[in-house]
Amino acid sequence: MASSLALALLLLVSTAATLSGRPNVDNVAEFARWLVRMGTWGVLSFNSPTFVPKGYVASYTDAGAGSPYFYLSILDPAGAEAQNDVRYSLTLSEFFFDDCGGQDPQSPSCAKITLSGQLLMLPGDSVEGAKAERALFKAHPSFLGFPKMNGTFAVYKLLIDEIFLVNKMAPPRELSVEEYLAA
Amino acid sequence: MASSLALALLLLVSTAATLSGRPNVDNVAEFARWLVRMGTWGVLSFNSPTFVPKGYVASYTDAGAGSPYFYLSILDPAGAEAQNDVRYSLTLSEFFFDDCGGQDPQSPSCAKITLSGQLLMLPGDSVEGAKAERALFKAHPSFLGFPKMNGTFAVYKLLIDEIFLVNKMAPPRELSVEEYLAA
Repeated sequence: MASSLALALLLLVSTAATLSGRPNVDNVAEFARWLVRMGTWGVLSFNSPTFVPKGYVASYTDAGAGSPYFYLSILDPAGAEAQNDVRYSLTLSEFFFDDCGGQDPQSPSCAKITLSGQLLMLPGDSVEGAKAERALFKAHPSFLGFPKMNGTFAVYKLLIDEIFLVNKMAPPRELSVEEYLAA
Repeated sequence: MASSLALALLLLVSTAATLSGRPNVDNVAEFARWLVRMGTWGVLSFNSPTFVPKGYVASYTDAGAGSPYFYLSILDPAGAEAQNDVRYSLTLSEFFFDDCGGQDPQSPSCAKITLSGQLLMLPGDSVEGAKAERALFKAHPSFLGFPKMNGTFAVYKLLIDEIFLVNKMAPPRELSVEEYLAA
């Protein structure tokens, strides 16, 4: 009887999760992919030449494949520093696209993720670069109005080396980049 | 006649700005103070011991005085790293509390600010530390539910050394810390 009830509850929770699109928090890789796919922007963390950590608000799309693409100008700090030190992190919160049910953004059950790795410029004449640019312009139509003619904008990809995910009242999740990309 | 019209328009714009509370973008110091006061959370950027830039979603309050206060645990990355390297930045976007009128978060006219400086733990028995804790608990009531008894949480203050502000289609604003704090 108790197990039937548990099963019914489980089904109910699963259905609710399906309806809202929010995966079960314990399906860690799937949850992380959902969070990154649902997000449209975050903060890039990077270093100044003297290792002062800086942040920059950047829009992105993962084009459905898990690795975020950006459209950055070398006239902006995030694009400029990538010419010197490619170590970058992208941090985003579930709060960006829902309000976490009124929870405080710092609450561990308001999900947040930091993807750390290397930010690389993709050549415009590469297949992946051209595809990423189309995906970025589709996700962020105003990018089309950015002054492309000055030649300072380019497409960048964050090659993920490490993932920090918190999505419930518990320590950060164990999640390898391989598991994340395969989800 | 033309100048009367200009004056009328100016008054209209000023009134609109007063109504929404959003200062004129060219009142740079006032605008920056408004942005930080209106925000409730942002991303802290900091370094790992090997200078890998990381980000962490953190709630804050400036308690009306311009310098952000945080409530962080040494069990979380942002609190932990502050024990080793106090150089931190806080980045936040106007998009956090309005939707920038439907603009893309990366658009320069969707205001964003990065405050860079040193993140210092405030002793709980100091006047400023006790005042900041009260302001934090008022702004973020759920902090009261954080496991204070484990002794890992403390109040931190970001001592600002540098300000990066973008609030219109133009290069980043010139704004000294002195001007900011005096506004």
